[in-house]
Amino acid sequence: MFVRNCWYVAGWSDEFTIGSPQARTIIDQPIVLYRTPEGDLVAMEDRCVHRGAPLSAGRCEGSALRCLYHGLKFDRTGICVEIPGQEKIPDRARVRTFAVEDRHGWAWLWMGNAEAADTALIPAATGIDNPDWRMGRGEEVFAAEYNLLNDNLLDFSHLSYVHRNSFKADEKWATERPTVTVLDRGVRVQRWIANAPAIASARDLGGTPVDTWSSYEFLIPGILLMETTFCSLGTAEASDFGPPVGGILRENRSSQAITPISARSTRYLFCIGSRASDASPEDADATAAVARMAFLEDRAMIESQQEILDKSPGFAPMPTTADKAIVHFQRIMKRLSSVAG
Amino acid sequence: MFVRNCWYVAGWSDEFTIGSPQARTIIDQPIVLYRTPEGDLVAMEDRCVHRGAPLSAGRCEGSALRCLYHGLKFDRTGICVEIPGQEKIPDRARVRTFAVEDRHGWAWLWMGNAEAADTALIPAATGIDNPDWRMGRGEEVFAAEYNLLNDNLLDFSHLSYVHRNSFKADEKWATERPTVTVLDRGVRVQRWIANAPAIASARDLGGTPVDTWSSYEFLIPGILLMETTFCSLGTAEASDFGPPVGGILRENRSSQAITPISARSTRYLFCIGSRASDASPEDADATAAVARMAFLEDRAMIESQQEILDKSPGFAPMPTTADKAIVHFQRIMKRLSSVAG
Amino acid sequence: MFVRNCWYVAGWSDEFTIGSPQARTIIDQPIVLYRTPEGDLVAMEDRCVHRGAPLSAGRCEGSALRCLYHGLKFDRTGICVEIPGQEKIPDRARVRTFAVEDRHGWAWLWMGNAEAADTALIPAATGIDNPDWRMGRGEEVFAAEYNLLNDNLLDFSHLSYVHRNSFKADEKWATERPTVTVLDRGVRVQRWIANAPAIASARDLGGTPVDTWSSYEFLIPGILLMETTFCSLGTAEASDFGPPVGGILRENRSSQAITPISARSTRYLFCIGSRASDASPEDADATAAVARMAFLEDRAMIESQQEILDKSPGFAPMPTTADKAIVHFQRIMKRLSSVAG
Repeated sequence: MFVRNCWYVAGWSDEFTIGSPQARTIIDQPIVLYRTPEGDLVAMEDRCVHRGAPLSAGRCEGSALRCLYHGLKFDRTGICVEIPGQEKIPDRARVRTFAVEDRHGWAWLWMGNAEAADTALIPAATGIDNPDWRMGRGEEVFAAEYNLLNDNLLDFSHLSYVHRNSFKADEKWATERPTVTVLDRGVRVQRWIANAPAIASARDLGGTPVDTWSSYEFLIPGILLMETTFCSLGTAEASDFGPPVGGILRENRSSQAITPISARSTRYLFCIGSRASDASPEDADATAAVARMAFLEDRAMIESQQEILDKSPGFAPMPTTADKAIVHFQRIMKRLSSVAG
Repeated sequence: MFVRNCWYVAGWSDEFTIGSPQARTIIDQPIVLYRTPEGDLVAMEDRCVHRGAPLSAGRCEGSALRCLYHGLKFDRTGICVEIPGQEKIPDRARVRTFAVEDRHGWAWLWMGNAEAADTALIPAATGIDNPDWRMGRGEEVFAAEYNLLNDNLLDFSHLSYVHRNSFKADEKWATERPTVTVLDRGVRVQRWIANAPAIASARDLGGTPVDTWSSYEFLIPGILLMETTFCSLGTAEASDFGPPVGGILRENRSSQAITPISARSTRYLFCIGSRASDASPEDADATAAVARMAFLEDRAMIESQQEILDKSPGFAPMPTTADKAIVHFQRIMKRLSSVAG
Repeated sequence: MFVRNCWYVAGWSDEFTIGSPQARTIIDQPIVLYRTPEGDLVAMEDRCVHRGAPLSAGRCEGSALRCLYHGLKFDRTGICVEIPGQEKIPDRARVRTFAVEDRHGWAWLWMGNAEAADTALIPAATGIDNPDWRMGRGEEVFAAEYNLLNDNLLDFSHLSYVHRNSFKADEKWATERPTVTVLDRGVRVQRWIANAPAIASARDLGGTPVDTWSSYEFLIPGILLMETTFCSLGTAEASDFGPPVGGILRENRSSQAITPISARSTRYLFCIGSRASDASPEDADATAAVARMAFLEDRAMIESQQEILDKSPGFAPMPTTADKAIVHFQRIMKRLSSVAG
């Protein structure tokens, strides 16, 4: 049901401080993450081999982690190196470890076999740590399966309805269709919204008639890398409806990660902001606040949708032409789900 | 498990105001109800054909309803009349509608095929809107299957025990058996409780020795239509133990509806009161308050009973002679359950 | 899944006062307990034969119990002796009763057939009512299966880790192995912890270097009978590592009962204290407070362990040499589970 061979965002890198093990559940797997004295991230199953106790309730000892139920100690590769009161340590006394990487302000976890983890596959997110961009951040947990969040982000026609109060998006977001390009591990969605009020994440531009260039990649398992460029009227046509050539008033970026906790619980992390040269920290916080309001609107909608779907065992969606990116993305997910992890 | 071909009470008619869609779950089906500008009630599946979003989170536009996820619009017959950004509307883009009727202060919903809905089958409740009666009202949600509530109302022997504090019912309610008449879609239960203190819903008569005529119909799926007539001593005999002939001190009526939300959740709506000529609005509220106290006593008992039954998979009830109406009613329910809806 | 042929602790004897029926769920069975005017404990299924209503919501009438739903009355042997309004009482109108005994301050319930109940099998606990010992008491409910609590008490190596803050137990509890003796219905676990700080339940001795004699029996279904004797340094050797011969500074006793409520809920009752000649009531309360803090540490660990195990269907524990008592005890439980109850 979950794709294993991909990088999931386990959290913000700064959530994991030296010597402080943290529990996370990702695709229904209990994981413990901790940072060694050298600053390296370690991720392993949050389950002592002895009796299944949580290693996340344990104690960091140097780069090792001691279970605080009966004292078994594991090195950073997951191998048990001490059983108090017992000399012989069985070969099977090892905990599975996971490949984990700090990148773009996030801790990325490869849930498949660690040997197959290829850091080149980590999406090139514009992160909270990027000096060129001034990002605010936020997160929410949705009581819904993660595919419903992915579907939401793959079809921005909902902006005109779900986010009429937060983003104040024009109807054109619903009535005009983007160009969808299929990528190896996701899709690219691009469009101009010409001559319409700028959405509210444009800060002081919000409501001003502009040409808006919206371009994003949505990559497995649920990573959104978005740029939204607000341009003066006429820029769309002057750019021949390709990426904007001049006329730029404001550039926004947002990186968003959908991380399944379990079948009906999903963590949603996001950062959003403008060029650092063009925004103060207060601007970034204000933009993030608008986004947070929007994502609470999404949460209300999606949690209700989930409740309804759970009461509707035979329900099959009826795709519209707005669902092109969803259809392609689901196809990619299906292909990758069938690969053993 | 649920009877479909019958009228369920979806709520009080005044809960449904023009332009304000409301979600209700009835027999595990998500339903949206709204009132058109003309005042007509509309009921349809609360599930957009597109991706299952809640139409109850949508927006009334005239007599139509627009889904506020991606903007699909449905007319009052459930047919999709607009998909933003798409010209062709598929034939399957329609939402199931239900027959619904305002009657006796309640909104009645036929959960079977709308074509089979016969308004002549709506029980002749004495409603909150009846000018001849001064009714107070109330409602509760019970965490129990609705059959346990029906059983409760089909056997008033529980009055002497469960309602010894609220109604202050005499032991005769438990020790004397009513006459049970089988009807086409329910049962009629009638009796005299002669020479016993009037129950507390008799207001200022409460506790006075009276002859009480209790007569009710209990109709599928769980509609109680009751009259309780408090008479001077000797009236039972003078009336030859049939309906009271003279001697009437006070007449009460109560209409009650048991509406299953889901397998373990049930809504209980009731109104109760006396003749308008004989009662002030304050009297009606006071009578409803006594009834509410009684129904909270029922709720405590029934929710505990449900917990016990859920731990007792092999349990079979042991009927007593007080269960005659229950046995007949269950037989009718079983017969009607087997009819496709 | 549960052993039936054994004595479970249903509660403290003083929880059951005359005329006040109490509900308890034990091994997923709803039970009502009440005390007759003569002071005898009665236990029966908490489920009226009529429609499954809770008898615990009923009313004691002499030594009988009346259901307060429809008034059926049961004598102390579970036989229905009255159905209001009905002369004939069917033979099947009887509620199963259980053997129940007040002993050592606890109410013990035999969950198998009452005829097989042998009071000689009630463990010889040092109870709250024992005049020679000054005991404090406490209890907690754990959201975990009871076997995890049993495992916890069968291996005290966890003291050094889980209880480093409450009992302040030395590492020797983890690194040294006790002697385990297999009994007919449990195990005996004995050891000296020589020359180590006394654990905090030793009151004013806590932290003083002592030789500690720890000896306990752990009996089915989960009854711990423990003595902990704090001795002057050298006593272990002078006693040839058998039970202490002289040198005794303080003697503690503790009796603890693990009672399964349901598959994922367990009640844990305990009393702990010192010789009455050696402790005030305040001392007993202080000792119980330390124990309570320790058992909350256990609860946090075990509830997390349960959550992890529930996400790990294929997990098999990897026993260590500290698990000897667990392995033997589980074998006894398995043998007794296969006996019909």
